Amino acid sequence: MNYPKGIRIKNNKSINYANRGMTLENDINQTNEYYKEIEKAIIYKRPTPIQVTKVHYPSQGKVIIKEAYFLQPSTLDYCGIYNGKYIDFDVKETTSKTSFPIKNIHPHQLKHIEQIIRHKGIAFLIIRFTKLNETYLLFAKELIEYINKTDKASIPYNYIKDKGHIVEIKYSPRLDYLKIIEEKLEE
Amino acid sequence: MNYPKGIRIKNNKSINYANRGMTLENDINQTNEYYKEIEKAIIYKRPTPIQVTKVHYPSQGKVIIKEAYFLQPSTLDYCGIYNGKYIDFDVKETTSKTSFPIKNIHPHQLKHIEQIIRHKGIAFLIIRFTKLNETYLLFAKELIEYINKTDKASIPYNYIKDKGHIVEIKYSPRLDYLKIIEEKLEE
Repeated sequence: MNYPKGIRIKNNKSINYANRGMTLENDINQTNEYYKEIEKAIIYKRPTPIQVTKVHYPSQGKVIIKEAYFLQPSTLDYCGIYNGKYIDFDVKETTSKTSFPIKNIHPHQLKHIEQIIRHKGIAFLIIRFTKLNETYLLFAKELIEYINKTDKASIPYNYIKDKGHIVEIKYSPRLDYLKIIEEKLEE
Repeated sequence: MNYPKGIRIKNNKSINYANRGMTLENDINQTNEYYKEIEKAIIYKRPTPIQVTKVHYPSQGKVIIKEAYFLQPSTLDYCGIYNGKYIDFDVKETTSKTSFPIKNIHPHQLKHIEQIIRHKGIAFLIIRFTKLNETYLLFAKELIEYINKTDKASIPYNYIKDKGHIVEIKYSPRLDYLKIIEEKLEE
């Protein structure tokens, strides 16, 4: 599929529901629903930005968008509030077993992550190595530290395993990433 | 214009630029730009949610949205981070000189505001009485308190003047609303 992840196209029969509930994004969405229900946190998925170029007014008060384009996001996919604190993160999957390609994070997103650090927000990536079936939370500080000191095109698996925090997959919530945030805040 | 506020339509010759920089929304956008530049806060304008129903692939890797609809926002227009804290607010204008109509705030938005209070976020409305040329910041607590105890369809001007905080219009930043937040946090 060529449209950005997370965009739902109504009536598109080619969507494959076989993997529903198995992607990292679905696991995070389910977890965020859970957090909302138990009133632990409110985490939003930011919509993919869209530039509208043509609209049509079929009748009074009605608007149909007739031409529009997906734009490159300059922020991360998720943001929200946990106990008054600002949270901002993205989820990334890789099929590599040995490293995480830095090109998966756009330069605008890196700039955004650096801004959130400066403004004392809680920013991180949730990275899944799909072939290892392992999911890690890597805080922004450790992410930026590695990227700033390396000339390599990727972050080694061992760095993420060492500096990151493993997130176990459970039934509900699927990925209890806030547990790691809580431990970090208690330090 | 029938499309939601804040949506920019490219090449639409009917846009009136005469009032540019004079609406409350423009004042807030200018103020947020200023805060970003001086690294005081990062405040985003949430995009109006859009449901995409038809897409077209003119060539490999290209996507054009051919049919989509604006959805009713269930959150507030602005959110962001100030000194690690989560901020969430909306801006509303009224031509009334005596009260602010509660119908200007959708039920979903009220529910959202109550959630932000429970999660210890900083939530508020910035309300401009355009004919009085007065702008007030009203914190979520005082907003919800009034709405919960009244049967009336609007909040009296005097309540907003009494419980709210006036925001003076200046050259730059146009509306220094974070000054009021800072004072509140120092209490």
